[in-house]
Amino acid sequence: MDSPAVLQQLMTFRVAVPSWALGAGGTRFGRFTIGGEPRNLQEKLDDVAAINRMTGANRAVSLHVPWDLPDDPGGFREYAAHLGLGFDAMNSNTFQDHPDTTRQGAISYKFGSLAHTDATVREAAIEHNLSVIELGRLLGSTALVLWLADGTNYPGQASLRGQFERVASGLHEIHRHLPADWRLLIEHKPFEPAYFASVNNDWGSSLLLAQAAGDRALCLVDLGHHLPNANVQQVVSRLAMTGRLGGFHFNDAAYGDDDLTAGSIQPYRLFLVMLELLEIGDGRMPGLSYMLDQSNNLKDPIEDLIQSTDALQVALAQALCVDRVQLAASQQANDPARSAELLNDGFRMDVRPLVAEARVRNGGAERPLETFRASGYRKHCIEERGAAARSTGL
Amino acid sequence: MDSPAVLQQLMTFRVAVPSWALGAGGTRFGRFTIGGEPRNLQEKLDDVAAINRMTGANRAVSLHVPWDLPDDPGGFREYAAHLGLGFDAMNSNTFQDHPDTTRQGAISYKFGSLAHTDATVREAAIEHNLSVIELGRLLGSTALVLWLADGTNYPGQASLRGQFERVASGLHEIHRHLPADWRLLIEHKPFEPAYFASVNNDWGSSLLLAQAAGDRALCLVDLGHHLPNANVQQVVSRLAMTGRLGGFHFNDAAYGDDDLTAGSIQPYRLFLVMLELLEIGDGRMPGLSYMLDQSNNLKDPIEDLIQSTDALQVALAQALCVDRVQLAASQQANDPARSAELLNDGFRMDVRPLVAEARVRNGGAERPLETFRASGYRKHCIEERGAAARSTGL
Amino acid sequence: MDSPAVLQQLMTFRVAVPSWALGAGGTRFGRFTIGGEPRNLQEKLDDVAAINRMTGANRAVSLHVPWDLPDDPGGFREYAAHLGLGFDAMNSNTFQDHPDTTRQGAISYKFGSLAHTDATVREAAIEHNLSVIELGRLLGSTALVLWLADGTNYPGQASLRGQFERVASGLHEIHRHLPADWRLLIEHKPFEPAYFASVNNDWGSSLLLAQAAGDRALCLVDLGHHLPNANVQQVVSRLAMTGRLGGFHFNDAAYGDDDLTAGSIQPYRLFLVMLELLEIGDGRMPGLSYMLDQSNNLKDPIEDLIQSTDALQVALAQALCVDRVQLAASQQANDPARSAELLNDGFRMDVRPLVAEARVRNGGAERPLETFRASGYRKHCIEERGAAARSTGL
Amino acid sequence: MDSPAVLQQLMTFRVAVPSWALGAGGTRFGRFTIGGEPRNLQEKLDDVAAINRMTGANRAVSLHVPWDLPDDPGGFREYAAHLGLGFDAMNSNTFQDHPDTTRQGAISYKFGSLAHTDATVREAAIEHNLSVIELGRLLGSTALVLWLADGTNYPGQASLRGQFERVASGLHEIHRHLPADWRLLIEHKPFEPAYFASVNNDWGSSLLLAQAAGDRALCLVDLGHHLPNANVQQVVSRLAMTGRLGGFHFNDAAYGDDDLTAGSIQPYRLFLVMLELLEIGDGRMPGLSYMLDQSNNLKDPIEDLIQSTDALQVALAQALCVDRVQLAASQQANDPARSAELLNDGFRMDVRPLVAEARVRNGGAERPLETFRASGYRKHCIEERGAAARSTGL
Repeated sequence: MDSPAVLQQLMTFRVAVPSWALGAGGTRFGRFTIGGEPRNLQEKLDDVAAINRMTGANRAVSLHVPWDLPDDPGGFREYAAHLGLGFDAMNSNTFQDHPDTTRQGAISYKFGSLAHTDATVREAAIEHNLSVIELGRLLGSTALVLWLADGTNYPGQASLRGQFERVASGLHEIHRHLPADWRLLIEHKPFEPAYFASVNNDWGSSLLLAQAAGDRALCLVDLGHHLPNANVQQVVSRLAMTGRLGGFHFNDAAYGDDDLTAGSIQPYRLFLVMLELLEIGDGRMPGLSYMLDQSNNLKDPIEDLIQSTDALQVALAQALCVDRVQLAASQQANDPARSAELLNDGFRMDVRPLVAEARVRNGGAERPLETFRASGYRKHCIEERGAAARSTGL
Repeated sequence: MDSPAVLQQLMTFRVAVPSWALGAGGTRFGRFTIGGEPRNLQEKLDDVAAINRMTGANRAVSLHVPWDLPDDPGGFREYAAHLGLGFDAMNSNTFQDHPDTTRQGAISYKFGSLAHTDATVREAAIEHNLSVIELGRLLGSTALVLWLADGTNYPGQASLRGQFERVASGLHEIHRHLPADWRLLIEHKPFEPAYFASVNNDWGSSLLLAQAAGDRALCLVDLGHHLPNANVQQVVSRLAMTGRLGGFHFNDAAYGDDDLTAGSIQPYRLFLVMLELLEIGDGRMPGLSYMLDQSNNLKDPIEDLIQSTDALQVALAQALCVDRVQLAASQQANDPARSAELLNDGFRMDVRPLVAEARVRNGGAERPLETFRASGYRKHCIEERGAAARSTGL
Repeated sequence: MDSPAVLQQLMTFRVAVPSWALGAGGTRFGRFTIGGEPRNLQEKLDDVAAINRMTGANRAVSLHVPWDLPDDPGGFREYAAHLGLGFDAMNSNTFQDHPDTTRQGAISYKFGSLAHTDATVREAAIEHNLSVIELGRLLGSTALVLWLADGTNYPGQASLRGQFERVASGLHEIHRHLPADWRLLIEHKPFEPAYFASVNNDWGSSLLLAQAAGDRALCLVDLGHHLPNANVQQVVSRLAMTGRLGGFHFNDAAYGDDDLTAGSIQPYRLFLVMLELLEIGDGRMPGLSYMLDQSNNLKDPIEDLIQSTDALQVALAQALCVDRVQLAASQQANDPARSAELLNDGFRMDVRPLVAEARVRNGGAERPLETFRASGYRKHCIEERGAAARSTGL
Repeated sequence: MDSPAVLQQLMTFRVAVPSWALGAGGTRFGRFTIGGEPRNLQEKLDDVAAINRMTGANRAVSLHVPWDLPDDPGGFREYAAHLGLGFDAMNSNTFQDHPDTTRQGAISYKFGSLAHTDATVREAAIEHNLSVIELGRLLGSTALVLWLADGTNYPGQASLRGQFERVASGLHEIHRHLPADWRLLIEHKPFEPAYFASVNNDWGSSLLLAQAAGDRALCLVDLGHHLPNANVQQVVSRLAMTGRLGGFHFNDAAYGDDDLTAGSIQPYRLFLVMLELLEIGDGRMPGLSYMLDQSNNLKDPIEDLIQSTDALQVALAQALCVDRVQLAASQQANDPARSAELLNDGFRMDVRPLVAEARVRNGGAERPLETFRASGYRKHCIEERGAAARSTGL
């Protein structure tokens, strides 16, 4: 194993923090506040900077509109730059009704946005997405993530094909307005909130939608957005093969879209995804959008994001330690026992020293969770922002 | 087929309406109001009465505390009686923090209620349940439903056995205070909001908990609370065999706890459950607690509950039309093809005339959804209660 | 409802019988003979003719090579014609090693066929498929079904992308030799016998493979080849939308590829698939390849196939009874409760008289299972062919 | 971490090899021979001894009757002792019809064994199990494993309760004849070959059956015998809590009962199971029956069993490296982030040197797969036994 090369690659890995993960998350059954949650956009950036001081790998934030609307985008961008942060993909929202996205309540997304039977609703949804792109341009972002809640709860509720074609058409329209250096990232999910048929329910649908949208439309893979027993490594391989793999929402899940800490349930699956990414990049991580997407119901959100970032670094380091040349030979020779040994050689290695070294060289902490706790940051936030401060989030 | 006997049985079937299903439901991604939702407990009863006028089968309501706290229980009970309604099982709540259940915020259920490591929290949870029983007694209810959100989101978060034993102990304590004519109904669910290990995750755990609690502790089966591919008919059979089957939360689901209209996704499964119930009751529905439990995100809640009740009546009628004597003979003879024919003889029959007749004789409508729509009830509610009126609910 | 029109459509519906379903099926844990199984190709046709005499809808057989190799294809075709039967899609086999397909043992499909790393194996697999096409041409078939067992059992066993591209290339080669009036039907399946990553694991992969193969390559949907909780109606809609839906393997399943009687587990799902097909055909069944694919472990295979055909006819009749004009209006108006009523209007109707009428007019029996049993056919077969006679099959 | 203590525990861990895993396995779609498979019972023992020479941890074999019937049990036992091997749990078989278990074909297990409606069949099944116990006594085994294929493929095929009660009664009868120092190990499985309702389908059913059978009836957990998304660690905890956890069949699975190499798909799950076992044993592995159960379709069976044993040792070592005292404190303090760190401290450690050391001290090889390959054992077997030699197995 070539440690310096592994270290070099670990040091260049970056993963963005989603603004909605900085407050306590929840389920439809309730939400428990953590205390000292960010009250505004600046404080969200402060938290991301705090995370990055521990990990050295979280240098961008992914915003969620309409909740993240800076009054002064230019000033906000400067504030971020001052903290050493940039803006990864923007996220629009049409799964809730908010005055800013529903023409002040004139329309509703209850029965869909881009899939809606009513052209006025579809236009409002497009309009909202274009405004998010416009904001993103001012902030220096170059991508828009579109996860749509569109779908049906009951058989017969809508024409499955009609809904799909309307979404495809809407995406095409949004893509038409995409700045030349932007990418449209389309995210699929099998269910929730649609409980019978989601429009963009799987990678196959996502691929068709990306193809319908245009050249710069790519597919985003959220690790928790798959049916039971799905092989996520394979999904990644398929999308890469078609040239439409655009990025990731990292997290982990045991049942549905559980939004748990990356690597906390199936770390080996995360390792296999990293291995596939190295296969795609021929030994290097391909230049995709890497983002976290979690809902932190029980852990302190900052601690949860630190642990997720750490788990990604560990999995990447393990994947980098696999001898890909020998693996290719073993695959060619149809030797699954040998191939398993080669994978284990990477996965069973203790890569923590390598990860810690990469982190420290990037300005982070050797032991990020301990260091964060010792810093008293959360306590300070509670004093400053209040125990009842609540951030927007899911 | 003996139509009068089927009719008679259909006429005696009752299913309670949960108070939380009368308002628009939602997911963690949002909620869309339906307009004219009940603003208080009296209006909730009014809605149940409106449903019953259509179906003739919904003569009880299942309350949810702390949201359903009447100022004057005696007067409230009279109001219900005046509408021809009674009170089915009471539901307590320890999955959210509410001043009434947390000693005004002194404790929190974030890390569990009966399973909590802190005895003070466990005591508060017991205390709350006892207060719900006390209210139920005043209203004439004779059962308490306990669905607990207790569990963990991460491996290692808690001792699985420790949590289980604490819950068992808490249930035993609650059971000790149960009035002599009451039943404690324990409801299991595999996940959500606990995303790694729910304490009461399956029927086996539910059975052990009921046995630990006491003689009058029974298990409640929610049709949507099962792992993928689970055989719910079999779960019903098992629990009945142990003498611990206590009741049902009827709904339907395609993925998780989707809380959709009963029979809307897998009507054949509902039919098989009814068939098993007739097996248990030797041709009659056993005297269990039958309740709906839905979340009506898209349909008008009243319409949704009407359709669910209708679907239950249809499935029951189909099951009643199966020749159980011939089926037993076919089973004894190991003739699965013949058994399939006998099941189809019931399931493929058009039982709608029978169901309509039973409904009409019970004071309901021949075609309940049409009749409800023609009644203008929702429009009236919107005028009376306001378009923005929001009920409590999930 | 326009009964004559429904009747007319029911009468034109045909579904082919697979040759491998005529003997007792089994699992890796064993197989129990039924007695009197067909000993040769002629007897297989005799059994299909016997089935068709009951149903009036099974007028073609789907052969499986290398097990179904007629010595005299011309004479065999005449024999079939004499029985009123034709030949639906041919099926090749590269998931077992058989002297006829492995160049007398020179190669092995243990590590794949079209996906194999060894070009010699891939060539043998192509060669075998071309020989099946050649045989099919002599018999009057116009389609080849390709279900491949290719895939991996372990992470890292093979390059996921490499395997996929080799299969795509092989299919392209086979397609290049396809007679002008033939179709290549590509069948996906998530797992078994490949237990980590099947090459053609889902509809998205199947679509990509069909596109790579050529214009006349279409996708075949087996109702049991989906991950848990998959929405099969939606899969059908997606493939139809892309113009690549080619046909069906009908059966039912509760867990995996259980190959049970069609409609025996989820009859409502079958109804929804039929409804989608009518949507695709604008009120008529589109001209696809409709085949049964079952493994009859416990029922008499002939009885099982009769029940499956009956279930398909029932589901089709129910779907034909749905008012599609009103449904479209209700969908346009976002009225899921009304749409549910319209679906129920079809599904809850007793269509058995209509199905029986269609069957009788097609020369079948009013009550096919009873009539078959009364005919003494199986008893006759046991006498004629022997109690120990075993057919090829899965 | 106390390395000597970990080492000591690793050295005492044993896992039995099942006789059916020594030949190439397969699926219902076929089987590919590996060459040099054991032709008789002695050669099966030879292979187990060969495995043990590499791992030092496989000192017992688990036999499968009627396939493993020694002519001279006493001599066979001596042969085993001479190789340093003993006999772990015996396995009976009633899922296939074999002259030795069906009274020479007088009865059939097609429709069940202990669950059958015909008392004669049930008696034959009991009789067979008693004969297996008798053989086991002669060999020095002290346990019988009962996995039953009993169940149904179709709704309505049998009375779910009737089947269950007949099985319970049969187990009770077998238990009545159990030698005083024996245990009856009851193994559940959700499906296959029963495709609608298996009699012993989950841990809850297994527990009820064990309780009905008698005091020395315990439950056996096969890691691949669970519904999708089931939490196996929790199943282990539940059964241990009731005092009925008896043993394990170790393997791994991505979809169903895939019987893959232990730890090859979800190594973290295996680690969690080991952690739970240490919790049960208060820091030591409890004295249960630990067995492998795999089907080796693609790997050399011996190599597969070596890799499985290695994976178990690795997972155990990782679990032993978790600081259980600190973990308990973190759990008590409701600190899931800290608990996650403590689990990672064990799981991310490179325990291979420890495992290698334990192996070497036990007489095994430092790098067992490499050493086995270098030994030329398989080549020798092919020469000796023949390339076409086929062992019994699944």
